[in-house]
Amino acid sequence: MSPLSDHRKADGPLVLSIDAMGGDRGPATIVAGLATFARKHEDVRFLLHGPRDELQALVDKRPALSGRCDVRDAPRVVSMEDKPSHVMRNGQDTSMWSTLDSVRDGEATVAVSCGNTGALMLLSMVRLRKLPGVNRPAIAVLWPSRNPQGYNVILDVGADIRADADDLLKYAMMGASYARNGLSLEQPRVGLLNVGTEEHKGRTELKAAHELISANAEQNGFDFVGFVEGSDLPGTRCDVIVTDGFTGNIALKTGEGTASLIGDLLREAFAYSPLSRIASLLALTSLKRLQARIDPRRKNGGVFLGLNGTVVKSHGAADATGVAAAVELAYDLAQSGFGDRLAARIAAAGDTRPTAEDGPANEQKDGTDQ
Amino acid sequence: MSPLSDHRKADGPLVLSIDAMGGDRGPATIVAGLATFARKHEDVRFLLHGPRDELQALVDKRPALSGRCDVRDAPRVVSMEDKPSHVMRNGQDTSMWSTLDSVRDGEATVAVSCGNTGALMLLSMVRLRKLPGVNRPAIAVLWPSRNPQGYNVILDVGADIRADADDLLKYAMMGASYARNGLSLEQPRVGLLNVGTEEHKGRTELKAAHELISANAEQNGFDFVGFVEGSDLPGTRCDVIVTDGFTGNIALKTGEGTASLIGDLLREAFAYSPLSRIASLLALTSLKRLQARIDPRRKNGGVFLGLNGTVVKSHGAADATGVAAAVELAYDLAQSGFGDRLAARIAAAGDTRPTAEDGPANEQKDGTDQ
Repeated sequence: MSPLSDHRKADGPLVLSIDAMGGDRGPATIVAGLATFARKHEDVRFLLHGPRDELQALVDKRPALSGRCDVRDAPRVVSMEDKPSHVMRNGQDTSMWSTLDSVRDGEATVAVSCGNTGALMLLSMVRLRKLPGVNRPAIAVLWPSRNPQGYNVILDVGADIRADADDLLKYAMMGASYARNGLSLEQPRVGLLNVGTEEHKGRTELKAAHELISANAEQNGFDFVGFVEGSDLPGTRCDVIVTDGFTGNIALKTGEGTASLIGDLLREAFAYSPLSRIASLLALTSLKRLQARIDPRRKNGGVFLGLNGTVVKSHGAADATGVAAAVELAYDLAQSGFGDRLAARIAAAGDTRPTAEDGPANEQKDGTDQ
Repeated sequence: MSPLSDHRKADGPLVLSIDAMGGDRGPATIVAGLATFARKHEDVRFLLHGPRDELQALVDKRPALSGRCDVRDAPRVVSMEDKPSHVMRNGQDTSMWSTLDSVRDGEATVAVSCGNTGALMLLSMVRLRKLPGVNRPAIAVLWPSRNPQGYNVILDVGADIRADADDLLKYAMMGASYARNGLSLEQPRVGLLNVGTEEHKGRTELKAAHELISANAEQNGFDFVGFVEGSDLPGTRCDVIVTDGFTGNIALKTGEGTASLIGDLLREAFAYSPLSRIASLLALTSLKRLQARIDPRRKNGGVFLGLNGTVVKSHGAADATGVAAAVELAYDLAQSGFGDRLAARIAAAGDTRPTAEDGPANEQKDGTDQ
């Protein structure tokens, strides 16, 4: 679709930039996850960022990484407690900074980090810069759903607590692009999260966003289903759900919390009596099938959208399986040329604000009252 | 605590006002649920509102209701499609209006309706009026949690899409009162929903609410734990979670949607193979135990807080078990004298805004600049 993506693919093997530090479980877990991924994909190379000696020792223990993983020395680490603004000013020697700069400099296609989300987002904005036309980048996640593709795309889940109508339109375009490339949906259906599905409901800015997205859906290759509710996040009414980062973050954590509570109660229920413990043994494969379906580690990774370059944020507490899933997601996105396709989409859309909101005024700027 | 509640109790048997119409399953289901409740509580009387002949025939078939249920004729019904403002202007002959007026006139202590939430809230505000000191009433629900009491209180889940700092303080007070009377917690712990727990995070109005609630917690008999996240809704960090009705409604529906998806996937997992179907038979009691714990019908009912009188909103799709649970909740609240206790609390708190935000100014009104 975009000439840029063809150019990238012709360049040789895909390169992913991996932050080895900042995860709750330390670099050994990151390297283990990377090795798991590397065994399945022989055509990918890695740039691994962190303290050289420590990382080189870990890499040398993994035959799957042999000859495919360059360690880039970055002595300092961004911790979960570091304030994003502090990292932005003083983070030059950190592994996070170095990871992003490899994408910035065109050495790698996608960056992956388990570190501090706020710092990673702010650093990404500073080092990679926002795409022209995007005011607020967003974090998108895949949410288990009843749709045939098994997941819906939700954004923003926490990049910015505010979003105006134009931001929400950009989220719709970026989310649709993600669904097209990440979930193979040709014409994704986009919904706008609200407290009811009637058009008169909700906050004023949501009514404005409804109009704006509706007016821009066709030319951007997605269907707009209008307002959707919290119950539609795992539902079949749409494939992409758009909301501000405050609401999206609370919905995401509420969903995770609910799933985790039910998992615990399920375990309790099966541990209740000798008979139920026998039943749980017989039900083991059924329960494992269920777990595989909703296991957050299997689709681990929020994707930062709206930047010059794609960044995958893995869960800080991810184990090796989770890290491998995040790297897999980065690989899928890099392979599909997602970053360049998205940039082309946004560039082609131009400035959406005047087109939709003041459409007629555009053509008769001198006399809208005539 | 409040002399009013003693007065009410001395009046004779408790009376509940029940809207027989407006539920998705019709009045027969409401009457069946009422009979289920009545069999367990012989000391309660009912006022049942709707078309007299239809209801009387249904009541006559239920021995448990014999001699304890007055039918109040109300020929018209508020439908789920009716706009709240239309009902407010033209709803005089509806069962919903009649149900609320029985509480307004002091004939009954608590009202129960399965009808249109928006209409019920607006009618409640018009007919019962807001408590002095409350600007925005709220809807509170009980959310399954890991806490010893099994549930947390969440409000507002959809009465109003906006809430300023003073509204959120009132929600904290009302939610704490609900937890005290409905969950028997002497000193409830209250949290304010946000996207992070650090004090510098979130929207400006949330920082103001944080200060205001913190300053008013002790004198209102609750502990303030500060900001909490979506994952804390079913958690143990607090017993009461306070948020605006937009965020609360989306969190509620996201939680319900997630629970429902997991339930479906669980059924699918167990239906997968002959062996898993046998396992599911053996696991039946375990699964039923789980279901009982998270079954929304068992704690069915949002409670409208901040009005002169308590209103319980049952789920529109409630079956007889769900209706019985909603009436049970109304009974619990009526018995504890909750409405009067809450009114006394709010009245005692007075105008919280100046006390907390401009405290010193109150005492030196003539010269705050001195």
